[in-house]
Amino acid sequence: MPKKSHATDFRYRRIADALGEQIKAGHWQTGDRLPSVRALMQRVDASMSTIVNALLLLEASGMIRSMPRSGWFVAYSKMAADSWRTTSAEKPMPVSVNQMVLRLLSSVDDTAIMAMGSTTIDRTLLPVAELNQAMALVARRQPDRTVRSGQSVLGEEDLRRHIARLMAVRDPGGVPVMPDEIVITAGDGLSMEMILQLVAQNGVVAVESPTYFGNLQALENLGLKVIEIATDATHGIDLAALERALQQQPIRAVIVSPTCQNPFGFTMSPDAKYGLLELARRHDLTIIEDDIYGELFFGRSVPPTLHSLDRDGRVVFCSSFSKTLSPSWRVGWMIPGVWRDRFLAQKLVRGNGVSSLPQLVLAQYLSGRSYSRHLVALRALFQAQALMIRKCVLHHFPAGTKVTEPQGGYVFWIELPERCDAVQLSVLALNHGISIAPGAIFSADNRFPHAIRLSVGAELTPFIRESIAQLGLLARDMDS
Amino acid sequence: MPKKSHATDFRYRRIADALGEQIKAGHWQTGDRLPSVRALMQRVDASMSTIVNALLLLEASGMIRSMPRSGWFVAYSKMAADSWRTTSAEKPMPVSVNQMVLRLLSSVDDTAIMAMGSTTIDRTLLPVAELNQAMALVARRQPDRTVRSGQSVLGEEDLRRHIARLMAVRDPGGVPVMPDEIVITAGDGLSMEMILQLVAQNGVVAVESPTYFGNLQALENLGLKVIEIATDATHGIDLAALERALQQQPIRAVIVSPTCQNPFGFTMSPDAKYGLLELARRHDLTIIEDDIYGELFFGRSVPPTLHSLDRDGRVVFCSSFSKTLSPSWRVGWMIPGVWRDRFLAQKLVRGNGVSSLPQLVLAQYLSGRSYSRHLVALRALFQAQALMIRKCVLHHFPAGTKVTEPQGGYVFWIELPERCDAVQLSVLALNHGISIAPGAIFSADNRFPHAIRLSVGAELTPFIRESIAQLGLLARDMDS
Repeated sequence: MPKKSHATDFRYRRIADALGEQIKAGHWQTGDRLPSVRALMQRVDASMSTIVNALLLLEASGMIRSMPRSGWFVAYSKMAADSWRTTSAEKPMPVSVNQMVLRLLSSVDDTAIMAMGSTTIDRTLLPVAELNQAMALVARRQPDRTVRSGQSVLGEEDLRRHIARLMAVRDPGGVPVMPDEIVITAGDGLSMEMILQLVAQNGVVAVESPTYFGNLQALENLGLKVIEIATDATHGIDLAALERALQQQPIRAVIVSPTCQNPFGFTMSPDAKYGLLELARRHDLTIIEDDIYGELFFGRSVPPTLHSLDRDGRVVFCSSFSKTLSPSWRVGWMIPGVWRDRFLAQKLVRGNGVSSLPQLVLAQYLSGRSYSRHLVALRALFQAQALMIRKCVLHHFPAGTKVTEPQGGYVFWIELPERCDAVQLSVLALNHGISIAPGAIFSADNRFPHAIRLSVGAELTPFIRESIAQLGLLARDMDS
Repeated sequence: MPKKSHATDFRYRRIADALGEQIKAGHWQTGDRLPSVRALMQRVDASMSTIVNALLLLEASGMIRSMPRSGWFVAYSKMAADSWRTTSAEKPMPVSVNQMVLRLLSSVDDTAIMAMGSTTIDRTLLPVAELNQAMALVARRQPDRTVRSGQSVLGEEDLRRHIARLMAVRDPGGVPVMPDEIVITAGDGLSMEMILQLVAQNGVVAVESPTYFGNLQALENLGLKVIEIATDATHGIDLAALERALQQQPIRAVIVSPTCQNPFGFTMSPDAKYGLLELARRHDLTIIEDDIYGELFFGRSVPPTLHSLDRDGRVVFCSSFSKTLSPSWRVGWMIPGVWRDRFLAQKLVRGNGVSSLPQLVLAQYLSGRSYSRHLVALRALFQAQALMIRKCVLHHFPAGTKVTEPQGGYVFWIELPERCDAVQLSVLALNHGISIAPGAIFSADNRFPHAIRLSVGAELTPFIRESIAQLGLLARDMDS
């Protein structure tokens, strides 16, 4: 793993740079297959491991993607890289998105609706049989543990051990995570509120633009101000823009999602991750890393978390099993770093307990081999679908529509022509039984009046294609 | 059930009044057995149902108790009734108990400790086998329901139906509860915070004195002021004192625990409950009813909830299965009344989801007959132990010590002689491996420097007796 490559100058790195330049120069187009590993070995006269390392590095930077059993494909698109960059807000501002989010969320309960507004994953994609088996096993084999008098504020130890192992497998060379550093949460907004209340200390909080609306809601609930930072749809938050903001505002924390961000779908390169950590060190900034879609990265190896690269305990890491295993079980985790004791105190005084039962069942499930197989299958499906969904959107939506090329996860950010009002479109769509998320809720300043987020956490059925076509029709009507 | 007895004048009521007068006059002492039903029938020439109704009414007022297969016993004690009454605070004040509670709670995790500070119930008293069986059944028979894409913000419908049924069984003549009025919560402090934020609207909140410290913590976390109202250890909150406070302060809500209050153990009489509702109506006050120990009432029939008597939706009802079934599963419920829609919106925008898994298992468990049997057994045990624990405390603690006679639940409020400092005692006790709750955390104004709360949610073993004796020794040392 090229964990510390920024400081060294290995051969695979020079090869990766050269290949990257060729891609940027347009030698290959988005979707093109790269020469095989063997062909590349001959071409530059290098060993297989050097070539593979170079490809993994390019993949981590989001320029190429691997497809199982098919090889490596170019993911970089010149158009996208040039034009998909937002700007920074000029100053911090209060947040007020709850009312609009509420209107969005209230449609989720209605099962008659084609829900592309919320990011819940369809149960047909989940390992239902294995999870039920784990549940039956826990009831039979661990009856003494299911019903207990008390519970640890940290959460079930078995589950924390499995999470620590998962994180070590993902980042074998990174800063190791001890089970006692992990705090089980309900993976909910209230956990985010509790950590924000500690780290923000009434200061300003920086976020990517666009950012997941739940972050904005937590800030609104706490009455904190937000400053939105320029963000590139392919490369992530703009570090220079963040630094300028840090020089001008009393910013205490930044919330980022460096791997498979919602809603842009980008993954920051390892270099950019190192750069963000360095910036945070210089400005004594706390980084809250939301990795909830991280395991759904499309490449062969999931890129390192910021947390695994952080040696100061400056990164607060948050994740959850909601997007990969069990949306309704409400089990997530947080690694609060230097904030651990204060976070645990908050949890104790606010009684934010997490049910032990799903924790025990998840620990049992994770002790088997199903999870890694399950993740491989999910990634392959979402990766294969991503291209098709993108194509489907571009086919049906008005000319001038842009769609992100996500590097993981299952959300798509769509920018419509200026005559299309996204809030109006979402209301019209709801009348047709389709829920979508209007761009307005991804900003405190209504920066995205013509954008929508589409979430497709399900197998791409004809019905979903038809729904996308229907949306496109509605958008075309508005555009004409 | 004597639900509307305040407005009528049935014979059983006159008989109850007469018996009550005789008890107050001292014809029988606390713990004395009353004449049998048959003997009373002859004495006043009444039918069996009239006598039984009279006894149930006296029981609901807390003057007598039934013991399974043993008859009726006097629970009223003149000393207690006269002297166990606290006073009202003169004005609202900010709350600051979190730090002290934190010190108390941090000892709970340590299993080496004899935990009489927290109110968790011991697992040996729980229907562990039946709960595990329910869990296995759900995994086997309802695999389609355990893992799902989304979840309702209200919580699992099956569980809400069972809860509605339980409440109907408890209060057959009361205001019926529909499953859709019930919102499943994690039974935690954050749910209390969310409802308080809505109902208090930055006004003052009134509480019983002493009150459960979790209420004070929720108020502290919200920055709300509290006013503590005079409370009688046998009869509950002083309605006249509450009315005076309502006339002087902008009080928006009152938190009460009318049945088996923590820490005093009282149960308000039906008349007092009606009085409180009437007062609330006159002053447009919201009542938050905490019924978490309600099902552990020692009498033959559990008294009506305030909620069942309320026809205005003015009572917000909170309860949980934590004290009777599964402390670590974190499943409770709330009936927000007129606040329902606003509470649900809060839950949605703050992401306060409750795990579906324990809800499904509890619904399965409640579909059987175990729960009512389990409650009968628990009540009988705690009732039988209550007298023994009280005797044990009075035997070992210094002269002048007073102990409550709880009418349900398993906590005891102990007032020590003035030379005993309760916080100091709790520190000394912790050094001996015993945790207790000092009176200080049950008030925003340190009103109870010489009181402690003892919680015995376990079978009364020689070890617990020794711990009580040890506590008594420490207290005697301080007193001498």
